[in-house]
Amino acid sequence: MASNTQKDGSAPKENMLWGGRFTGGLDPLMVSYNESIHFDRALYAQDIAGSIAFARANIKTGILTEEEFAKIEKGLLAVKAEWEADKFVIVPGQDEDIHTANERRLGEIIGKDVAGKLHTGRSRNDQVATDMRLWLRDRLTDMNGYLATLLKTIASRAEAEIEHVMPGYTHLQRAQPVRWSHLLMSHATAFSQDYERLSQVHARVNRSPLGFGALAGNPFGIDREAMATELGFESVLPNSMAGIADRDFIIETLQWGSLLMLHMSRLAEDLIIYSTAEFAFVRLADAYSTGSSLMPQKKNPDSLELLRGKAGRTFGHMAGLMMSVKGTPSTYNKDLQESWEAMLDTVRTVGDSIQIATGVLSTLTIFPAKMQAALSPDMLATDLAEYLVRKGVPFRDTHHISGQVVALAEKQGRPMDQLSVKELQEVDARFGDDIKSIFDYQRSVEQRTATGGCSKSAVMKQIEVLKKLLE
Amino acid sequence: MASNTQKDGSAPKENMLWGGRFTGGLDPLMVSYNESIHFDRALYAQDIAGSIAFARANIKTGILTEEEFAKIEKGLLAVKAEWEADKFVIVPGQDEDIHTANERRLGEIIGKDVAGKLHTGRSRNDQVATDMRLWLRDRLTDMNGYLATLLKTIASRAEAEIEHVMPGYTHLQRAQPVRWSHLLMSHATAFSQDYERLSQVHARVNRSPLGFGALAGNPFGIDREAMATELGFESVLPNSMAGIADRDFIIETLQWGSLLMLHMSRLAEDLIIYSTAEFAFVRLADAYSTGSSLMPQKKNPDSLELLRGKAGRTFGHMAGLMMSVKGTPSTYNKDLQESWEAMLDTVRTVGDSIQIATGVLSTLTIFPAKMQAALSPDMLATDLAEYLVRKGVPFRDTHHISGQVVALAEKQGRPMDQLSVKELQEVDARFGDDIKSIFDYQRSVEQRTATGGCSKSAVMKQIEVLKKLLE
Amino acid sequence: MASNTQKDGSAPKENMLWGGRFTGGLDPLMVSYNESIHFDRALYAQDIAGSIAFARANIKTGILTEEEFAKIEKGLLAVKAEWEADKFVIVPGQDEDIHTANERRLGEIIGKDVAGKLHTGRSRNDQVATDMRLWLRDRLTDMNGYLATLLKTIASRAEAEIEHVMPGYTHLQRAQPVRWSHLLMSHATAFSQDYERLSQVHARVNRSPLGFGALAGNPFGIDREAMATELGFESVLPNSMAGIADRDFIIETLQWGSLLMLHMSRLAEDLIIYSTAEFAFVRLADAYSTGSSLMPQKKNPDSLELLRGKAGRTFGHMAGLMMSVKGTPSTYNKDLQESWEAMLDTVRTVGDSIQIATGVLSTLTIFPAKMQAALSPDMLATDLAEYLVRKGVPFRDTHHISGQVVALAEKQGRPMDQLSVKELQEVDARFGDDIKSIFDYQRSVEQRTATGGCSKSAVMKQIEVLKKLLE
Amino acid sequence: MASNTQKDGSAPKENMLWGGRFTGGLDPLMVSYNESIHFDRALYAQDIAGSIAFARANIKTGILTEEEFAKIEKGLLAVKAEWEADKFVIVPGQDEDIHTANERRLGEIIGKDVAGKLHTGRSRNDQVATDMRLWLRDRLTDMNGYLATLLKTIASRAEAEIEHVMPGYTHLQRAQPVRWSHLLMSHATAFSQDYERLSQVHARVNRSPLGFGALAGNPFGIDREAMATELGFESVLPNSMAGIADRDFIIETLQWGSLLMLHMSRLAEDLIIYSTAEFAFVRLADAYSTGSSLMPQKKNPDSLELLRGKAGRTFGHMAGLMMSVKGTPSTYNKDLQESWEAMLDTVRTVGDSIQIATGVLSTLTIFPAKMQAALSPDMLATDLAEYLVRKGVPFRDTHHISGQVVALAEKQGRPMDQLSVKELQEVDARFGDDIKSIFDYQRSVEQRTATGGCSKSAVMKQIEVLKKLLE
Repeated sequence: MASNTQKDGSAPKENMLWGGRFTGGLDPLMVSYNESIHFDRALYAQDIAGSIAFARANIKTGILTEEEFAKIEKGLLAVKAEWEADKFVIVPGQDEDIHTANERRLGEIIGKDVAGKLHTGRSRNDQVATDMRLWLRDRLTDMNGYLATLLKTIASRAEAEIEHVMPGYTHLQRAQPVRWSHLLMSHATAFSQDYERLSQVHARVNRSPLGFGALAGNPFGIDREAMATELGFESVLPNSMAGIADRDFIIETLQWGSLLMLHMSRLAEDLIIYSTAEFAFVRLADAYSTGSSLMPQKKNPDSLELLRGKAGRTFGHMAGLMMSVKGTPSTYNKDLQESWEAMLDTVRTVGDSIQIATGVLSTLTIFPAKMQAALSPDMLATDLAEYLVRKGVPFRDTHHISGQVVALAEKQGRPMDQLSVKELQEVDARFGDDIKSIFDYQRSVEQRTATGGCSKSAVMKQIEVLKKLLE
Repeated sequence: MASNTQKDGSAPKENMLWGGRFTGGLDPLMVSYNESIHFDRALYAQDIAGSIAFARANIKTGILTEEEFAKIEKGLLAVKAEWEADKFVIVPGQDEDIHTANERRLGEIIGKDVAGKLHTGRSRNDQVATDMRLWLRDRLTDMNGYLATLLKTIASRAEAEIEHVMPGYTHLQRAQPVRWSHLLMSHATAFSQDYERLSQVHARVNRSPLGFGALAGNPFGIDREAMATELGFESVLPNSMAGIADRDFIIETLQWGSLLMLHMSRLAEDLIIYSTAEFAFVRLADAYSTGSSLMPQKKNPDSLELLRGKAGRTFGHMAGLMMSVKGTPSTYNKDLQESWEAMLDTVRTVGDSIQIATGVLSTLTIFPAKMQAALSPDMLATDLAEYLVRKGVPFRDTHHISGQVVALAEKQGRPMDQLSVKELQEVDARFGDDIKSIFDYQRSVEQRTATGGCSKSAVMKQIEVLKKLLE
Repeated sequence: MASNTQKDGSAPKENMLWGGRFTGGLDPLMVSYNESIHFDRALYAQDIAGSIAFARANIKTGILTEEEFAKIEKGLLAVKAEWEADKFVIVPGQDEDIHTANERRLGEIIGKDVAGKLHTGRSRNDQVATDMRLWLRDRLTDMNGYLATLLKTIASRAEAEIEHVMPGYTHLQRAQPVRWSHLLMSHATAFSQDYERLSQVHARVNRSPLGFGALAGNPFGIDREAMATELGFESVLPNSMAGIADRDFIIETLQWGSLLMLHMSRLAEDLIIYSTAEFAFVRLADAYSTGSSLMPQKKNPDSLELLRGKAGRTFGHMAGLMMSVKGTPSTYNKDLQESWEAMLDTVRTVGDSIQIATGVLSTLTIFPAKMQAALSPDMLATDLAEYLVRKGVPFRDTHHISGQVVALAEKQGRPMDQLSVKELQEVDARFGDDIKSIFDYQRSVEQRTATGGCSKSAVMKQIEVLKKLLE
Repeated sequence: MASNTQKDGSAPKENMLWGGRFTGGLDPLMVSYNESIHFDRALYAQDIAGSIAFARANIKTGILTEEEFAKIEKGLLAVKAEWEADKFVIVPGQDEDIHTANERRLGEIIGKDVAGKLHTGRSRNDQVATDMRLWLRDRLTDMNGYLATLLKTIASRAEAEIEHVMPGYTHLQRAQPVRWSHLLMSHATAFSQDYERLSQVHARVNRSPLGFGALAGNPFGIDREAMATELGFESVLPNSMAGIADRDFIIETLQWGSLLMLHMSRLAEDLIIYSTAEFAFVRLADAYSTGSSLMPQKKNPDSLELLRGKAGRTFGHMAGLMMSVKGTPSTYNKDLQESWEAMLDTVRTVGDSIQIATGVLSTLTIFPAKMQAALSPDMLATDLAEYLVRKGVPFRDTHHISGQVVALAEKQGRPMDQLSVKELQEVDARFGDDIKSIFDYQRSVEQRTATGGCSKSAVMKQIEVLKKLLE
């Protein structure tokens, strides 16, 4: 015996997919809480392509005749044309998602008798998963193009500006002289790992769930491999229960995107600091800066700050979706709907960010004289130690000796290169007259010829390898 | 000398706030990456209220005459009326944010001479922060109301259905009998902590940054306390550099909301499990369920799954914003713009979720007979142990003895209450003839009279305390 | 009929709490995966205090005689003494958690007959929750002290160094001159919000779950309020099912700590940037710096970088625990064990960080001359605009005019204060001869007298308010 | 002129790497906040292997003679032997990290003159990165083995128990009959994606940073490729600035591990629900369960709850490290030290979890009769619709008709298979006498023969593919 407090409900709309059974009404707030049409409409083309492939495969299963298929295909293409012409009218309350909307419209165009056969043996579960994978696969291909452009931009710039030497920082403290191009290529290194990883993510996205039905599989012997081929999938997913509920392909994309955005953030942080009046190594083009409503002299690196800030946004989407998926048992649960908006917004944000970064880097002004001026003799303390190493002194001793020279220079308030040979020899007798030759920043960077170092040859090699990767 | 690759740029729009200086153009993608009007338009009323208070305070500073103020106030109210009538026309490209839009329109209505005085000594920094706080403060007040309604719903239901006893679970294993109302009140306990905490968050949100300017403070001696009073703020923030960049009020709201949503998730998880065919303790109203596109017999608890899934969404917003804010130095940085959308979406999601949960709980059907049937004698093993405790046997021994009884019953394939007194006495001679009286679930729960327990009196006391809190 | 692949298992250790029933063995890896003694031993004192209070309350319920209680109390104090003297020997495999360990040892000291009565009507569920709350409450009190010291340090320093003016930055671009003390106080503002919020978190932590048993409540009418009073709790939790599984008190602490650590990170970021050779406003004491193994001249702000980095660590604990709790139904589930280590590590990290920050700030060397030198005339562009505002020019015009002056100075390659009055008047005729008086940084900051501004009086007021708060 | 509040400091320990320069002392709390020896000692073997490879390569550069190298190698192997015999004595305060410790000990064994040459041209930056990569690479290889074992266990079990049919759930509502083996294989599908992805992560981990120095590269022309080969790296990293600060290899591992743990969590959630008294499909072996301290009848699936809960823990490590890395500029910053503990704990947790899951699955008892009993005729509503589809009725109509049958059965309180053919024909005349044949669960699952479905043949194919993958 039920203790019931049922609200007075009205009959649900007829075309709701589960219309045959329900007797209560829907809370209007629940309707909007539940519906996805405002964001899944982005997938209209994928939904139609998937439906055509599904219908075609159902000729062989005997569900559809050739004529019925032809009608369906023609009708679906008409629906697609409406979307493309921006003439598709969403019926509020009825068209709760893109799948319902397309099928409703198909029925209006070709009649419900034939349209009503389209969904045979299919479920919204495999339909949704198929649409999302098709859509995302194409976006990742776009992303691949954006990344290639960014990498080419960096490589070109690095090649053109290879002469300039600047301070290399660790802990944001001046450490050793490096080439500006070497710094650029260090960021390219991070992005080229994203580029490499992207193709692996793409491959896992591009697998077909179509033909899985609700969860148990298709009972009409549908040819899943043929549908996958038609839709450009690389392979079919192997298990229906897993396949309809697998949102790993989105989580992987979000993990990929949020790591890429960490790279963006670190690049942005470098350039923000280099844009300060105190460093003044670079200046953003006006196209990527904004002013202040109160302070007319300000020119703020907003583009970089947004790149940096949006690393949080994409991370948040990943974190949120992982938590949503975490709290579910296996197979499909409605919680998975949360994957949509996280996916859509991440794809847009990451794509825009790569393009903005490309714009920033291709219009950035650099100030080599400022970079040069920021080099200080104490940054050659390691070179000083290495000088002694070449004379056979153990490094631990040379490190200590070099430290004493630094301390001496600091104590005397003179730069290290202004100390006389005699003064140096008082610290350690092994300093020879040739010691003064080490105080040359170009010489210092040109010593770093080992693979991955900052000599001209070593940087050019990096550039060549990158260019080859992008060919 | 700069090594420059400047793009050919066109002049920026005249009314851009920093229009006086920039000479380059804007990347169109950058414009959309940067602009906030599509989400900050929600704050039009707050922006106008803040501007009126600011203008009024500028009579005393001598910036505005009484007449100028009157013009501005009238003009701003006209702008507000346009928004309210949905007649405000956003000028794409020009109106990059709500502040620019409102001031642009004000200038058109009352002339630029007077309108141009409005922003004196103010910055977008303090203006944005003021608008957000005003808006959020009001939303938190709404939330307070929603939560009170949810809590009242639970309390009423708990009072009405106090008779029913069900299994209490730990580790999802049947543990001890409890009242259904006790379970309901356990969820109310979590939400009432959210209710308590909300008022503390509200107090920290409701503090005024108005009059801080860009970061250094106002140079015309503006009366910040008076403006705060006019706008209903509880107090003024103490430091301009902190105040213009403080997004803690949003982070705290997001932390609050994401903890509340964990409570939602746990409630939803309980009810989803109780809605299974296997448990069958409750059934959702049709208004909060949906069907399957493939399986006509299905009735899915979508509302609960969405409540559970959206706990991930709100967590994601919090995590994302914390990461965005984390990577910034002090004062304002554009990264902080990320706080907007996280705030707007969280407020909407949490508000909707509380209302959906209220709807679910007020229309839920319960099946007390099923609950009763799920009670099994082994759930009284603790009562059995307590029986011996009352006879002076140390608990550790009683626990062991009771365990032997459980094992005996399991071995014999009979429920524990079907064992004879003699069989029990073979396990332990201290069992008396009265031992059979413990196999009574109502008796068991009625023993738990200590504060916070599940006897009728103890549950009624919880309900009364909660009702009092909400008065 | 079961399809069983049971491993050959050996009998579990006798003293395992559920020893009465199990017949299989334990996977050794599972034993270590499950056990908590290596981290929960930190709570020995709380566990013992809780047990004594529980035993004392069981005199009134009739479970224990006065003599039995006296034995138990004496025995528990002996166990405590062993812990304090570092003489307690944990028996591996047996003492799986602190509760088992203490009770095992108590039994050895006073005999199992009396010791075996201690746990009557109690469960590990309420015991664990009680211990954690007692422990955390005390740690939050410590934290309150650390924070007060940090705030006092900042206030003292701000007072002592109030003369110095430096650039105030937004977007890391020079914006307006501010007092160094004003910047210090902006960080104090953030920490004083943490200080305020801490007391609210403390109050929610300091509530008693003792007497809830496993989940249904205590059947012997135990006086929960009396136990709470003995243990220094502010109140008792209201519902047993909620109370035994509530880890919100930890989540709230972690949310609080991770927000505080964001403040640390922003403070650290400021000081790291100010420590660069390019800014050179501050220098860390050697005590908070480290050197480089390769570069003898380096002095790295490791302490600040760790403060900044550990903001990630505490956030991670919060995020992880929230996800663990998220995926659970109500009442106790073993997932909640994850709360321990997150809590322990966060408390240690936050406490250490506050103290390190205090050390850094109390030993920091500042370079006022460098700060002064970094001020540039264009930072007074707003003052220039304000000058015209005082002459009645609408701000929007003055902003535009001031922008033209900035552009003129930039074009001519001269600082703005080197432009002649005549040149300025060519931009706008309303500039008078007194215009040159605005190029004075002290004058500029002294204008910002409105509450929360950076004039001397306004900063001193902030300091006084803070000191009063800490009294 | 500096405004200084320097603390009285004592001289730092002589052997601290930066000992040559610092004049102040260290805050003892700062020492512990900074030091890493308590966790990085795990890498002693990798540190020694890396040092030997580095020394060997320095013969060719002329830094070391063959004899010096031989001494160093012998000495380092002696140090390694001390670690292996657990005889290495860490000197508190001196041995701040594993690198310092090993070099200190080497100097004691072979003398400082030769030992002092070891670090020439190397920095802790490339040394740390090398050690971590070597260590992690080997752990990922272990992980590969654990995962293979888990997958084999699932495949064997799925093969052995392929007969059993159970309810397949979506939204935790009974949906369609599926094979128990199909469910098992759905979890295997998720883990086999982890297995595939692991090898890609491994490849990115297994790249050498050795020879990068502090950030600018090696000035002695060291052969990085030779060292990489000696250490078993697949390739060398391409850029020194990127390479010394790249913690992406850890982040990727953490992303991988946290996604794997989501799969664990979903598996655990399934089994926890199936272990309830209400479902009763499975029972955990005692080895993976624990009892209750209060309720002797309880048998809790602690192992599964820990698997589920620890998904939060690993996620937290990933989230925390991403946040730590996020807030840094490029190259090395001390924040990166946070990567250590996150890596160590994640590797341990994930490795243990896979093994625990393997143990759980290999000892689980299943109850096929209970699974069978949970199948209900309404789960064949889709089969009913498909029956009509085969007669040419459009699916949308059959879905509606089947819904009416479900409603009729529910209204009459009889299971759907108890309705007479006549009653069915009253709903729709197209139902024939053969309709009763569809009420057969084995028949239903055997229809799902399309790839990835739950017929016996389709499941066996999945098993074969998996086995082949693991060969």
